[in-house]
Amino acid sequence: MSTHALTILGSSSALPTSHRFPSAQIVQFFGRFFLIDCGEGTQMQLRKIKVSFAKIQAIFISHLHGDHFLGVFGVLSSFNLLGRTSPLTLYCPPGLQEIIMCHMQFGDYSLNYKLQFITLPKDDHVQIFSDKKISVIAHKVSHRVPCWAFEFTQNVTTRNLKKEYISQYNLSISQIATLKSGKDVLLENSEVLSHTECTYLAPKSSYVYITDTRFLPSLTNHIKAPTLLYHEATFEAKCKQRAHETYHSTSEQAACFAKAVNAKKLIIGHFSARYKQIDKLLNEAREIFPETYAAEDLQSFSF
Amino acid sequence: MSTHALTILGSSSALPTSHRFPSAQIVQFFGRFFLIDCGEGTQMQLRKIKVSFAKIQAIFISHLHGDHFLGVFGVLSSFNLLGRTSPLTLYCPPGLQEIIMCHMQFGDYSLNYKLQFITLPKDDHVQIFSDKKISVIAHKVSHRVPCWAFEFTQNVTTRNLKKEYISQYNLSISQIATLKSGKDVLLENSEVLSHTECTYLAPKSSYVYITDTRFLPSLTNHIKAPTLLYHEATFEAKCKQRAHETYHSTSEQAACFAKAVNAKKLIIGHFSARYKQIDKLLNEAREIFPETYAAEDLQSFSF
Repeated sequence: MSTHALTILGSSSALPTSHRFPSAQIVQFFGRFFLIDCGEGTQMQLRKIKVSFAKIQAIFISHLHGDHFLGVFGVLSSFNLLGRTSPLTLYCPPGLQEIIMCHMQFGDYSLNYKLQFITLPKDDHVQIFSDKKISVIAHKVSHRVPCWAFEFTQNVTTRNLKKEYISQYNLSISQIATLKSGKDVLLENSEVLSHTECTYLAPKSSYVYITDTRFLPSLTNHIKAPTLLYHEATFEAKCKQRAHETYHSTSEQAACFAKAVNAKKLIIGHFSARYKQIDKLLNEAREIFPETYAAEDLQSFSF
Repeated sequence: MSTHALTILGSSSALPTSHRFPSAQIVQFFGRFFLIDCGEGTQMQLRKIKVSFAKIQAIFISHLHGDHFLGVFGVLSSFNLLGRTSPLTLYCPPGLQEIIMCHMQFGDYSLNYKLQFITLPKDDHVQIFSDKKISVIAHKVSHRVPCWAFEFTQNVTTRNLKKEYISQYNLSISQIATLKSGKDVLLENSEVLSHTECTYLAPKSSYVYITDTRFLPSLTNHIKAPTLLYHEATFEAKCKQRAHETYHSTSEQAACFAKAVNAKKLIIGHFSARYKQIDKLLNEAREIFPETYAAEDLQSFSF
């Protein structure tokens, strides 16, 4: 059973609309809460979904265009006003630390919790975070300013029981747990039930966030079958040239990417304000990759 | 007939809630559009009320606490993306220019329109803007960091016709216009109708914005009978001590101020996030100043 969830806080591109905030999302993955990008209004969106601010342990900023980071000052300040004391890590491009320090200096404020800055690496495909359960890799993408994609991957492999064995051997919950933990079980008839026989390795869960980039086929070699993929689709297919010139992707290209990496599900977002309805973009993507969904603000996707 | 209007874009204090954005408002006064404070999310609120961004000619920032200025970066950037070429003036405390320049430097962006910074004066009660029709005076208030109130006043006096003269002399529209412009009219019976006799000077319209301050009785000597007054009321009356310590005002104090300056109408706002309902604050103010209204996001008040 999956308990991972992605909640979209903003799905517009540079110009927000009356119903789409700039890029921001919160991912809940193995009990950790991460903010990914932090466009203007992120803290107001967080209020609406009633997530506990204290649970957020890190923020990942893809690049220094305003629609991806202007909400960070309000988030940091509100964490402070709400009494946060636990440390917060900010994975960000070079420059954001200087901007935040500038705010603190001229705006005359300080934080009562430790804010750690981790500057995103110049090299491609670098692991920037790892704990017992998950890892995060930053991949460089192709935008007008330095920009990174983030890949959240499960570290440990888990075993699932082949269902037919439960009824065949009338297994207890305790026996199931033993088998799933990778140990064999001695049955009442003295038969040994091997965990390798009646369990299989579950595929690792992963979430990949790719925004503000030209279509980047070379990146498909580095990403393997994500459970959930978010890929920007600023434009419809016929604006391919405009997408290329502005370092963005089309709906078709997002779907091609999802197909190439064998994603289980694709979310497209970062829509240009020119699209009042995004049905066309969604349909274009679904023609290539049927399991595509369009991001809407405050919508959640479990994975 | 009045065509002036104030629209509230945000009415929360430092912590926004799910239905109150941080401080921002737009005032339409003699055909001019001014943004007053510019909390996070201002551009999204402007989108909702469908005001033309191009009409806004100046932004007034009261002080450098995040809930009053964090939306300015997004506003400046979106003006640019929407093709603005007309100049914009930013009346702001010392420091905001440096913060904006820091954003531009590290965020790698520039503006295609002229942005003029006018630093708010150290002296009290200084006129910072004047054109044919209106003037703006900045008054220093009492907050933890330098903070200013803004008074928007009509420059020219206008004449209204005493209604009884219209029927008595069967005046034409042209004759009414002549009298209101301050000239006398020669009637068909060769009688001269004096404009001083049949018109009177209309009271000047004005709007006063006072936020983030301790109750400041001394300021009442400098403000005369505003048509509309906005005064912060962060706390209810019983939290007077807390208001004083945090350099804020209570609902009662806002009403006392309105009464002392003989305001026509009072709007209270900048409510602490602790108040889910602000009925109590509104009632407390109305006991002292009955013409009090509570600010709600996206609500307009004509004056």
